[in-house]
Amino acid sequence: MEKISVFCPATVANISCGFDVLGLCLDTTGDLMHFYHKDTPGVEIIIKHGPKLPTLPEENVAGVAATALLKALRSDKGVIIEIEKKIKPGSGIGSSAASAAGAVYGVNQLLGAPFSTQELIPFAMAGEALSSGVPHADNVAPALLGGITLVRSYDPLEVIPLHVPEELFVAVIHPQIELKTSDSRSVLKQQVSMKKAIRQWGNLGALVSALYTENYDLLGRSLVDEIVEPLRSPLIPGYKKAKSAALASGALGSGISGSGPSIFALCRGEEIAKNTAAAMNAVYGELKVATELHISKVASRGTRLIS
Amino acid sequence: MEKISVFCPATVANISCGFDVLGLCLDTTGDLMHFYHKDTPGVEIIIKHGPKLPTLPEENVAGVAATALLKALRSDKGVIIEIEKKIKPGSGIGSSAASAAGAVYGVNQLLGAPFSTQELIPFAMAGEALSSGVPHADNVAPALLGGITLVRSYDPLEVIPLHVPEELFVAVIHPQIELKTSDSRSVLKQQVSMKKAIRQWGNLGALVSALYTENYDLLGRSLVDEIVEPLRSPLIPGYKKAKSAALASGALGSGISGSGPSIFALCRGEEIAKNTAAAMNAVYGELKVATELHISKVASRGTRLIS
Repeated sequence: MEKISVFCPATVANISCGFDVLGLCLDTTGDLMHFYHKDTPGVEIIIKHGPKLPTLPEENVAGVAATALLKALRSDKGVIIEIEKKIKPGSGIGSSAASAAGAVYGVNQLLGAPFSTQELIPFAMAGEALSSGVPHADNVAPALLGGITLVRSYDPLEVIPLHVPEELFVAVIHPQIELKTSDSRSVLKQQVSMKKAIRQWGNLGALVSALYTENYDLLGRSLVDEIVEPLRSPLIPGYKKAKSAALASGALGSGISGSGPSIFALCRGEEIAKNTAAAMNAVYGELKVATELHISKVASRGTRLIS
Repeated sequence: MEKISVFCPATVANISCGFDVLGLCLDTTGDLMHFYHKDTPGVEIIIKHGPKLPTLPEENVAGVAATALLKALRSDKGVIIEIEKKIKPGSGIGSSAASAAGAVYGVNQLLGAPFSTQELIPFAMAGEALSSGVPHADNVAPALLGGITLVRSYDPLEVIPLHVPEELFVAVIHPQIELKTSDSRSVLKQQVSMKKAIRQWGNLGALVSALYTENYDLLGRSLVDEIVEPLRSPLIPGYKKAKSAALASGALGSGISGSGPSIFALCRGEEIAKNTAAAMNAVYGELKVATELHISKVASRGTRLIS
């Protein structure tokens, strides 16, 4: 029986000034998913490892994404998806995006790769929408493509892979506090001051320039978010202290990963990333909050076959 | 008697999605300024050619900029600035910025270049402020540095020169209608929808990526302004038709130059730029509005010595 196994990486969306458009891919943190043919049409979900997740395909992110792909192909093939969930749901590092990206990547491979990886993004977005209510690409795009991606437009969808400097590492700390995505969304405002918006796009333009020129100092100065971080960070206990600790450890910049509660810091080199993670961890140690740490190069590759 | 002559280029600020942060420099359209020492301290302004401009240094953009520079140097040197104004004031292609940039560049040269060109930007901004009320850098920065520049931050001031693709040309048409900068400013709103702001910074990030990767098609798709253009373009008769004509001629994108009434179009190659300028000109021919056309490579150099 043919079996395909896929690594589905965690991702950091937003990246300070890039709210709703930027995302980056971690190299080593992620889920595993296994794919088999089955004789009857449709998708079957098996949770092999991890938290209790729905197994009805229409209630499961991977199921919805895989079904969208099969529908587009008008395929009556059947697929079993076995999930080893390692990314904690609700952590803010793209847990549902990893499932959605992995599902479409694996099913596409199983069926002989009729779609390019870029073309898989809309199907993964359909899966993501089950979890967040709206189809977003800022996690699924870097999960599928790797690296750092920018969503230029949703209508039509256009995702641009950006250049990633060689020494760029990310430290992520997940303080294990509950923070609902709906709460993170509800603090956002529908209007924003023009002055702040101008500063935000000035920083975003500078960040993109810094990536191409591998200017780490400029990259650090550009990691500013005057619009969303002030609204969301009060929902994360210890945020200010953790961010200060990251910057004091030599991180280029730090912010909320996705809609939180995870906090990311971009760093030049692995050693600074390790020190940064340790420093942020010490803050939550004092607060007696359990954490999970992820230290990773910004991955050059996204979702991929592992066997 | 020592004489220094300087070419002070015209500039296009904003560039669609880059409102208040982006600007680019024209290669051949600009003013001439000549600088001489004088025996008594202070600045003397002579208008050698062009429209009637104030000659009192404190009422003249070049005078204010030059005075700011001399003050910073605590210099009691005296300078005569002779202006050949060729860029029409109020055209939207950085007429006052050219005067401000030229003044600080020339005086700096005359005094043995104590400042780098980057360091001259704040003094030129002081001159610009006389004309627009607020110190802006989106015209003076590209006028001084050449190329395409991005203002990341005003506090502290940080201007980033971006990569300019080799074949990038700009066609500018100045329909000779009166449009006060104050009117262009008054239509702007202090608040902007978050959705539109996100689309704007998505486009700006894509535009910066397109510059570095020399991806002309992406550059064209990124030249979208959903925030300012809809408010300002109704102030410019014929705008929609001129923009449509530019795009139909193969321009990558088109928008309002600065606060108008000039309209710019970015093009790949000189031939398309010429055709684009002619097509826009035909629109204003039908409307019986006199025009001035400027076709130029995006300049790699800014304000410079010419003798």
